Amino acid sequence: MSDAAPETFDVNSIDEVIHGRIRLGIMAYLSSVVQAEFGEIKTRLQTTDGNLSVHLRKLEEAGFVEVEKTFQGRKPLTRAKLSDAGREAFIRYLDQISALVSQR
Amino acid sequence: MSDAAPETFDVNSIDEVIHGRIRLGIMAYLSSVVQAEFGEIKTRLQTTDGNLSVHLRKLEEAGFVEVEKTFQGRKPLTRAKLSDAGREAFIRYLDQISALVSQR
Repeated sequence: MSDAAPETFDVNSIDEVIHGRIRLGIMAYLSSVVQAEFGEIKTRLQTTDGNLSVHLRKLEEAGFVEVEKTFQGRKPLTRAKLSDAGREAFIRYLDQISALVSQR
Repeated sequence: MSDAAPETFDVNSIDEVIHGRIRLGIMAYLSSVVQAEFGEIKTRLQTTDGNLSVHLRKLEEAGFVEVEKTFQGRKPLTRAKLSDAGREAFIRYLDQISALVSQR
């Protein structure tokens, strides 16, 4: 809108892929580490296997997260990390949400 | 978790009623005005009548927004404003999301 200053919070610019509560938690956690194991993220977010899988896949499909599946002995091991695009998108998201927080 | 500092972003403490993108836009806008007309909020958020109605009702049901329906001549007029509980919840939400933003 014409009366909107550049730093005004614009709800339509918010990336829904990142904004979802669990996905936001994943992005925030992955932004603070080099990479993380599936179980570690699950514990951190206090969520379930199924829930985490769904949201991790959505972030992977968006190109924001890279998922690596290997084996540790016979045990499957899933690791995730932020991609460069994911890091950029997360910074953009934080910039947008900052406008909301700074209105206080 | 035991290693979580008080100012750590905790995804599970986020109020989903407020966090939804459109509802967040409504709350942010209403927090900046005394009250607003339906059409004004709709224009501001660039959303539809149906979409705005659904989210406004959800915020009303949570006790965060007070909706007043009157008539201007023969034209129905809907006005909304933040309730005291809504203002408190919004401040709490901003505090929570601040922890995320301040991690940068």
